[in-house]
Amino acid sequence: MNGAETLLRTLLNSGVDTCFANPGTSEMHFVAALDRVPGMRPVLGLFEGVVAGAADGYARMADKPAATLFHLGPGLGNGLSQLHNAMRARTPIVNVVGEHATWHRQYETPLASDVVAYARPVSGWLRTCASSRLLATDARDAVRAAHGPPGQIASLILPADCSWNEAGEPAPALEPTRRPKVDQAVLDHLEKVLRSGEPVVVLMNGAAVRADGLEAASRLANATGARVFADTFTPRLQRGAGRSPVERFPRYPDQGAALLGEATHLILVETVPPVGFFAYPDQPSWLTPDSCHIHTLAAPGEDSVGALEQLCHRLGAATDGATVQASSVPEPASGDLTPQTVGQSIAAHLPEGAIVSDEAVTSRGGLPEATAGCPPHDWLSLTGGALGGGLPMGIGAAVACPDRKVLCLQADGAGMYNVQSLWTMARERLDITIVVYANRSYRILHNEFDRLGLGEVGASARALMDIGNPELDWTSLARGMGVEAHRIESTDAFNTHFAAAMREHGPRMLEVVL
Amino acid sequence: MNGAETLLRTLLNSGVDTCFANPGTSEMHFVAALDRVPGMRPVLGLFEGVVAGAADGYARMADKPAATLFHLGPGLGNGLSQLHNAMRARTPIVNVVGEHATWHRQYETPLASDVVAYARPVSGWLRTCASSRLLATDARDAVRAAHGPPGQIASLILPADCSWNEAGEPAPALEPTRRPKVDQAVLDHLEKVLRSGEPVVVLMNGAAVRADGLEAASRLANATGARVFADTFTPRLQRGAGRSPVERFPRYPDQGAALLGEATHLILVETVPPVGFFAYPDQPSWLTPDSCHIHTLAAPGEDSVGALEQLCHRLGAATDGATVQASSVPEPASGDLTPQTVGQSIAAHLPEGAIVSDEAVTSRGGLPEATAGCPPHDWLSLTGGALGGGLPMGIGAAVACPDRKVLCLQADGAGMYNVQSLWTMARERLDITIVVYANRSYRILHNEFDRLGLGEVGASARALMDIGNPELDWTSLARGMGVEAHRIESTDAFNTHFAAAMREHGPRMLEVVL
Repeated sequence: MNGAETLLRTLLNSGVDTCFANPGTSEMHFVAALDRVPGMRPVLGLFEGVVAGAADGYARMADKPAATLFHLGPGLGNGLSQLHNAMRARTPIVNVVGEHATWHRQYETPLASDVVAYARPVSGWLRTCASSRLLATDARDAVRAAHGPPGQIASLILPADCSWNEAGEPAPALEPTRRPKVDQAVLDHLEKVLRSGEPVVVLMNGAAVRADGLEAASRLANATGARVFADTFTPRLQRGAGRSPVERFPRYPDQGAALLGEATHLILVETVPPVGFFAYPDQPSWLTPDSCHIHTLAAPGEDSVGALEQLCHRLGAATDGATVQASSVPEPASGDLTPQTVGQSIAAHLPEGAIVSDEAVTSRGGLPEATAGCPPHDWLSLTGGALGGGLPMGIGAAVACPDRKVLCLQADGAGMYNVQSLWTMARERLDITIVVYANRSYRILHNEFDRLGLGEVGASARALMDIGNPELDWTSLARGMGVEAHRIESTDAFNTHFAAAMREHGPRMLEVVL
Repeated sequence: MNGAETLLRTLLNSGVDTCFANPGTSEMHFVAALDRVPGMRPVLGLFEGVVAGAADGYARMADKPAATLFHLGPGLGNGLSQLHNAMRARTPIVNVVGEHATWHRQYETPLASDVVAYARPVSGWLRTCASSRLLATDARDAVRAAHGPPGQIASLILPADCSWNEAGEPAPALEPTRRPKVDQAVLDHLEKVLRSGEPVVVLMNGAAVRADGLEAASRLANATGARVFADTFTPRLQRGAGRSPVERFPRYPDQGAALLGEATHLILVETVPPVGFFAYPDQPSWLTPDSCHIHTLAAPGEDSVGALEQLCHRLGAATDGATVQASSVPEPASGDLTPQTVGQSIAAHLPEGAIVSDEAVTSRGGLPEATAGCPPHDWLSLTGGALGGGLPMGIGAAVACPDRKVLCLQADGAGMYNVQSLWTMARERLDITIVVYANRSYRILHNEFDRLGLGEVGASARALMDIGNPELDWTSLARGMGVEAHRIESTDAFNTHFAAAMREHGPRMLEVVL
């Protein structure tokens, strides 16, 4: 069997059965092998940002990696920003990047590129296959590296001749790697901290912001008085009625610094100390005062949930001591169409098991608050700040969870970066509802312009921050790619169309004109 | 004056007066400075591939660099594939990439990224500004580096505090750098080669495929019997009635090798020896037989036109000895709507001074032949093989040459990579006509699948090569971004709409349903 087939069979043996792809000539043997190796689902993106963001959303929901397939350095380049988001989310991805045949790389051809250099900024693991005979091993190592934990992007660069030459047997299934337990010495120490009576802030991410981790953290908070926060941006937060709610750490540095100024201890759970998202001329980037001691309960990928539960046990936290979110579903909104009324109406209809891909940016309004008591759901955030992740992540989530409703909350400016996502949603008939917040502006840039004290926005600056001339007609864009779409200009219309979208299956867009 | 203003004034002093941009928070001082520094035209792209490709097209036509403005590593990442094309075209670009403030880079923030690593694969010159006080020098050096010749991408990484801190006076205008003359010893040697009577192939690119270079090469060919070719892909080929025509070197390696197999000498003019675009299992990548001697008349950026003219003089080529393309404009086509009839009808109406951005890929049909005798025009090709350059290059060309008609010949699959280009065309009211060849397929992948002998295309492979399900509705996509569009299903309709598009001003799309 040739290398491509060995690669595919090795991936399948380890449970990697979905491949988001935008191939070229150097990947044709991989593409051809898909017809001979049953079980690998190919999903085409018309742009590589779609491919990368979909792989991110997929693994966040499937808890296992998808494979990607990119064409040489420039193809990978097109996916880098969404791979950056995936890297920050610690998402496992087996990132397969086609390369010219080994003997062809030396030449200055149009598509010659330093694929390794392209891959390095986002790859936790990176290897160029040197021979088809090594491909089974390379693929197995890539899957293992991707899985972690913590998850990471494992980039396997695949010269074309390694795909087409004889490669031998695939590698067998991998044993899943368990999360390392946290040392008892760490727990001893943090037990003392939590018994000290001094003010403690706990900051969490990773597995700790799933339901079990949040429940344990809530028990701990209630038993000790510690304040618990999720990171501002989390790959996958589990929330809703019956789960333990958690506050998010504030986004802006002045608010974060004020919060930490009141703490004597900061305990990190699968995260790093908070810093400002951006730098501002007269504000600190580092938010933790010297008087606040920083401790790590669990590094990313360690067994944070087990560690939280052990601390609960040591501290005598009641097993039923967690705060539990009461069910609370608002009525559909009335009145003017605003991010707030849209948020309320979304909350009124959000189904159990919904997956929210949140790239609403400045239009989020009161949505997190409005949906707090909705039926249990997952919330995916933009972890790396690279715009354009919302729609692709929705694709990945819908492929991973075909029986759950995916809701993409999409700012209009950010939605354009990977607008080609709509076509894949239609192609795969994914059960995704997209709410586009059409405010015709890079509103966040206006906000930051203000925050930086830059004064009045003049004509030239406006030309780079307003996107209303011409106005994007999102319903035309959606229809152009095969997605049913409605232009929404009133709260009543939103209620009607959103309720229908929640009842029915398939991709649908509601363009909310703000 | 702050760094951003010093940077802008330095760029303007050197004639860089156009900035294609997609900024973020770390670039807000640059954006604000645009309001205080008159003369810099900001052009917004809703995606960075648009920005990068537009800067490429602009400089190909303006013969001077534009500036870009990208937001951190991921923003630059989104532009890399089109910068790759620009790098292969040896296009001058002053590539400004915003970065976190110097003290902020150390922190693991969501958008922390190794900007230098992102920039390296495409940058001929690369520097991170270390202090606002150095920015005038850095900007001047970047402009000089970008200009070359040969042109290159000069990446200036700009930490936010270097923009907002005091920076002092801008650098004065640069003296333009002349192309170095070719050594007389080289001319002595190649005069002998050309007098030898042995078969010679001349392969050209860069300035040599503009009108003057082609005329000189044609005189040389007619005086000596040398065969002259342009590279398969050229940044800007000047052609049409009254100019000297040139054959393109064939794309596929078997054809190229056959051609060189008949030559004893290969003379390179601003290019490198031809190699296969892709590798194939049983074909050589290197096309020049050992029996063929390779000579360089002019390296890229050297005075190739002067060298060709000197050779003409030495060899006694008649000053009026060039072959001149006769005027020959076909009638508008009739019959079925095919790439061939579309090509004929385009040729029937192509106006003098048109700029053709050619990303028709497999739908080019007989277009180069049909347009050979049209009024003089420029032809821009995809030089680096990274799909998606056609529409952005059209933007850049139209910004550089507002009085000339730009024609984007666009394959549908390739057109989706930077489809956001349409919005910038509408925003800037650019005089661009786009012909979309809607064949609903990555036809070139089908061709390559065949060429690689991979047999029948099965369902999985088809899922990655056919894009007809759902069909893209290009007229909706265009209207969604403010561009007038027509769906064309007959040759008559094409003739009518294309003729109107050539008469009238502004962006317009014709979706040709094949």
